[in-house]
Amino acid sequence: MADDKALTTRAADFSAWYNEVIARAQLADYSPVRGCMVIRPNGYAIWEQMQQALDRMFKDTGHQNAYFPLFIPQSFLAREAEHVEGFAPETAVVTIGGGKVLEEPLVVRPTSETIIYAMYAKWIQSWRDLPLLINQWANVVRWEMRTRLFLRTTEFLWQEGHTAHATEEEAEAETLMILGIYRRFAEEWMAMPVLTGRKSDGEKFAGALRTYAIEALMQDNKALQAGTSHNLGQNFAKAFDVTFQTADGGLGHVWNTSWGVSTRLVGGLIMTHSDDVGLVCPPRLAQYQVVIVPIYRKDEERVAVIEAAERLQQTLRAANIRVHLDARDGLKPGAKYYEWESKGAPFRLELGPRDLAAEQVMLARRTGGKEPIPMAGIGDRIHVEIDAMQQALLGAAVARREAGTIRGATREQLVEAMNGAGGFVYGGWCGDATCENDIKDQTKATIRVLPDEEFRSDPAPTRCIWCNRDAVTEAVWAKAY
Amino acid sequence: MADDKALTTRAADFSAWYNEVIARAQLADYSPVRGCMVIRPNGYAIWEQMQQALDRMFKDTGHQNAYFPLFIPQSFLAREAEHVEGFAPETAVVTIGGGKVLEEPLVVRPTSETIIYAMYAKWIQSWRDLPLLINQWANVVRWEMRTRLFLRTTEFLWQEGHTAHATEEEAEAETLMILGIYRRFAEEWMAMPVLTGRKSDGEKFAGALRTYAIEALMQDNKALQAGTSHNLGQNFAKAFDVTFQTADGGLGHVWNTSWGVSTRLVGGLIMTHSDDVGLVCPPRLAQYQVVIVPIYRKDEERVAVIEAAERLQQTLRAANIRVHLDARDGLKPGAKYYEWESKGAPFRLELGPRDLAAEQVMLARRTGGKEPIPMAGIGDRIHVEIDAMQQALLGAAVARREAGTIRGATREQLVEAMNGAGGFVYGGWCGDATCENDIKDQTKATIRVLPDEEFRSDPAPTRCIWCNRDAVTEAVWAKAY
Repeated sequence: MADDKALTTRAADFSAWYNEVIARAQLADYSPVRGCMVIRPNGYAIWEQMQQALDRMFKDTGHQNAYFPLFIPQSFLAREAEHVEGFAPETAVVTIGGGKVLEEPLVVRPTSETIIYAMYAKWIQSWRDLPLLINQWANVVRWEMRTRLFLRTTEFLWQEGHTAHATEEEAEAETLMILGIYRRFAEEWMAMPVLTGRKSDGEKFAGALRTYAIEALMQDNKALQAGTSHNLGQNFAKAFDVTFQTADGGLGHVWNTSWGVSTRLVGGLIMTHSDDVGLVCPPRLAQYQVVIVPIYRKDEERVAVIEAAERLQQTLRAANIRVHLDARDGLKPGAKYYEWESKGAPFRLELGPRDLAAEQVMLARRTGGKEPIPMAGIGDRIHVEIDAMQQALLGAAVARREAGTIRGATREQLVEAMNGAGGFVYGGWCGDATCENDIKDQTKATIRVLPDEEFRSDPAPTRCIWCNRDAVTEAVWAKAY
Repeated sequence: MADDKALTTRAADFSAWYNEVIARAQLADYSPVRGCMVIRPNGYAIWEQMQQALDRMFKDTGHQNAYFPLFIPQSFLAREAEHVEGFAPETAVVTIGGGKVLEEPLVVRPTSETIIYAMYAKWIQSWRDLPLLINQWANVVRWEMRTRLFLRTTEFLWQEGHTAHATEEEAEAETLMILGIYRRFAEEWMAMPVLTGRKSDGEKFAGALRTYAIEALMQDNKALQAGTSHNLGQNFAKAFDVTFQTADGGLGHVWNTSWGVSTRLVGGLIMTHSDDVGLVCPPRLAQYQVVIVPIYRKDEERVAVIEAAERLQQTLRAANIRVHLDARDGLKPGAKYYEWESKGAPFRLELGPRDLAAEQVMLARRTGGKEPIPMAGIGDRIHVEIDAMQQALLGAAVARREAGTIRGATREQLVEAMNGAGGFVYGGWCGDATCENDIKDQTKATIRVLPDEEFRSDPAPTRCIWCNRDAVTEAVWAKAY
């Protein structure tokens, strides 16, 4: 794709558009290794911002980071019956090490419950050792058949939290607390509204008691599972013999939780906000929140303008704003505008001789709108702009999601939506896996969540959307990534 | 090892002492996977501090982070002849993916030159794309026969920088600039003095033109290679066809560098400073620079002391000091002192009712010395203490290294040192690999570096330490980890 060609539009081909946005903004690239991507500096910078924000939230709630081995003995995976069934088919297996065939093959971790709880069995002796609240930032591998940059790759980066508690109540509280952190991160940092709720048994994590998720609606009205938090009950504690001496002198198995978000979030960010020009990145996660483009014709102008631009850069840096001065020579301002728009820089500051004279600078927003603003107090002003754009992006995404949502839907509406516009479809569910599977077979829609109270319809549906028997719960259906 | 048992002393058994320091401070643990360790939260926190400091230094010098695949097609490794010879024997190989035998096996990266330069060939077209300055934080796997926690593990964490330049001079300047960053990090953050210099051809990186290294001397007088920076010349550019259009319209191969430090640094930190009580951690890298231990007997005392301790914690946090308040009930102050000493906390603040009344707190240094200091201005005082301890640790380590160094050594002195006390032995070298190999066979010492000018002896040695022929350079020998 040449750099000056317009992107395929979202309306024409959403999937082609998505790939072109990534290529144009140099966020990621295909690698020579099947299903594995390269995260390029522009994409990795967004992931680093995400990591920093999430890491702070985890640490503020008492979690510590650690690092567990990449390799898991194949036999470990088999100790929890549902877990091995879910993950074994999609593993990469090391059979040769140091030139010799291994006695026991090693699985490249698809997730680390088994290796981590094997260590917890060693570390946890008494109730005094609980809760144990550990997170790790790591790469994992799942052998995927159809891959898409960021959304589904054979190797991906993620964080996986693994905690151990003395009681079921504490484990449940942790599971929900983390779900809340994920929601807050999605809304406050990614400007991506999410539904929260529980997964049906058919969609839960292999080995979990209960899985909760945050689900977002992309611009093509398909759902993206953006993070999951699992109450593992005592399943892994029993499989790995993680016991502890209780406060009253007895012996119990611990209660575990695990939870994760991944580089998939970068894909969600792209598909939530970007437009036919290219990437739109919420300012709180942008590599550069502000890009300064100096404008000059003659050499005398150049010196003064570049000097002022450097001062402006320093001022903004001192105000804790991530700023880049694009001082490249031999590239016209218009070409720079176009490049930074496709790369998703939230704000552009154009600075020319007339702006200098007027002690102002031209502010252009990636989401539209351009106006001169005074140099005086510019740091504060940009912070106000950042907050405003962050709010505007979230507001627009909420409105779009609501426009794509049908509540109290009938069977016909569900079928019609899945044949056409897509979206979130709310309806009653009898709780029977037969209906869940029939819907999946006939419409390709899955239950995204059994929504948390805040997201439930009023009045609640009384009949199953599919079989018309009594509903035991409300559910949200969508086609999903 | 029970928690109240004294450690094996360094004098009695350095290697046992090292393992016990790690176990007692809960820095790392053996995993069920051969040669792979678990980095526990206390150890990972040190690594995180190291990462932050290094990452800032890399970014301040224009580097960006990215992420490349874990897996490398086996054929890629073979494209650079020396590289495959060096690394192929120690690789872990994935032969099965998604339940099927792979057509081409995938190597788990032992280092990423090959996969990265394959991507650079795609990304670099013209001199305008240069220099390309990328770093990645990642895990790598080398199938090691004998492993030791942090120092040599099958999987380890590291950063690997990979740059491409238009000229040999620029590549050499980058290689040396990074060596300078590594040295500065070792000295200013780890308080670990290092020699810098070039590796002999026998010790250089497989595929490099020239390898430079920082080398430190541990308390047992063995050397630790703590970081390497390679000028790769055009070896990989030619193997992967990384070409660019030069400014004058020609076509050239780029010049590459690569450089890395790893979790091995944590092992170096432990072996540089720790004592027979346990870990000693330089304050700039400590998880908690200050631990507050409240002292009270009666309940009335408790309330007031804990309140004051919390205020103190807030004061220190506001002063950007990493502080932990150990408010555990049911554990005597003495037990807490002992625990935090073995965990390497640089400063302990003891706070009791009498201290409250006197508006002071008792400061105890991990490196010795205890005195009351006033509450007023305590943030500034702790910063002064941090700098002073950092300097004192570096000074002590320099003095120890100098005491363990022999300059202008004879063949007999080299042999005697390697049979006995160890240390850095400086002498002339004829440049012949035969002498290098004979010395290695007979004394187990290797050439650590051909020292940079600053570290060379005056007068320079004129004869080879081994064969007595003319010396072409000075070299530093030591037994090494």
